[in-house]
Amino acid sequence: MVNLKEQVGIKAAEFVKDGMIVGLGTGSTAYYFVAELGRRIKEEGLKITAVTTSSVTYDQAESLGIPLKAIDDVEVVDVTVDGADEVDPQLNGIKGGGGALLMEKIVATNSKDCIWIVDESKQVKTLGAFKLPVEVVQYGAENLFRHFEQKGYHPSFRLADDHRFVTDQGNFIIDLDLKVIKDTEALANELDHTVGVVEHGLFLNMISKVIVGTPDGPVIIEK
Amino acid sequence: MVNLKEQVGIKAAEFVKDGMIVGLGTGSTAYYFVAELGRRIKEEGLKITAVTTSSVTYDQAESLGIPLKAIDDVEVVDVTVDGADEVDPQLNGIKGGGGALLMEKIVATNSKDCIWIVDESKQVKTLGAFKLPVEVVQYGAENLFRHFEQKGYHPSFRLADDHRFVTDQGNFIIDLDLKVIKDTEALANELDHTVGVVEHGLFLNMISKVIVGTPDGPVIIEK
Repeated sequence: MVNLKEQVGIKAAEFVKDGMIVGLGTGSTAYYFVAELGRRIKEEGLKITAVTTSSVTYDQAESLGIPLKAIDDVEVVDVTVDGADEVDPQLNGIKGGGGALLMEKIVATNSKDCIWIVDESKQVKTLGAFKLPVEVVQYGAENLFRHFEQKGYHPSFRLADDHRFVTDQGNFIIDLDLKVIKDTEALANELDHTVGVVEHGLFLNMISKVIVGTPDGPVIIEK
Repeated sequence: MVNLKEQVGIKAAEFVKDGMIVGLGTGSTAYYFVAELGRRIKEEGLKITAVTTSSVTYDQAESLGIPLKAIDDVEVVDVTVDGADEVDPQLNGIKGGGGALLMEKIVATNSKDCIWIVDESKQVKTLGAFKLPVEVVQYGAENLFRHFEQKGYHPSFRLADDHRFVTDQGNFIIDLDLKVIKDTEALANELDHTVGVVEHGLFLNMISKVIVGTPDGPVIIEK
């Protein structure tokens, strides 16, 4: 049985060359990409510098001996490889299931090239079956929650055990159960303008390439 | 010599009635409004509940015995009174000189009515002589700073003594030295869409009334 997440993680590492500054995504698929980079550094002498998108990935990369820099200490990232929770045929998608969407979006914004790695199950015609994560300031979060309720967005606070999940930046996450997002641009625009919203999980026009894991091998979809 | 800040602070308190939930602004002018509410509670038996927009105002209000609630524990604020750093003839303005713009904007967004209290020096034809505060996520703030430099926005990090100022929500503030903001809506829109920006100091279409302190007494400008 092929591990599709491992398949695409290894495939994506082929796009990493000596001397690059590489953005390391977060999550169960990005995990294999980071692991493969660690292997290539150790076995093949690959020379890269990496920036991470979460404390979890930071810990993994550090344990593998991948040279790390803070995002603020690099001018630009050459390529970022990350997972996604949903991706549509236009290569737009939803991220944030792992709770790292803010750092992931900041790294993606500072990257010349962004690649997503997913298994087939993440491909959708229309975004929205996956709950859209919205990172919000703790102060006033209850009011924002009620605002989303009134809009019919079926919000729920992300939990960790029995308390509210707190992101690496100290914010809450409210997941919106939208089922189908008819107009992604309009929703992104609305959320960008909403006071108290730090960032949201809609990644639009940011990705150049998606590598999809299939039982027949990885398939690359380009824009 | 009349204290114009005290004059408008006291005037604004006239709009506060028994039973109201009141938003308390932050800064040297709002200070007098809060002080006057404290006096009226003590001397006149005024009955209100207040929400605050900063830890500084919280401490002042608490010391005066003003009953306080968290913003998340009230459905809606009846009236919020706050200062401003600049206000134009359309009653749009810039806030954030005191570093509390995010909480101030969250409270304003949840208020039925917002009143600004300023002295004459804050009235301008066009916004922008006052540096526009932008609250940004710490992660990636250097890259955002460079982005603003490239845009010609003359950014500077807000400092506190010899280190970077950190807001009550744990973010940095970058002040943009724009001189003149030609299109406030376009700039607000651009900043809302900028990844890493939590909030900005442009308050557009949020204010119903500005009370201006003058040597001849307070002047009320309504929308």
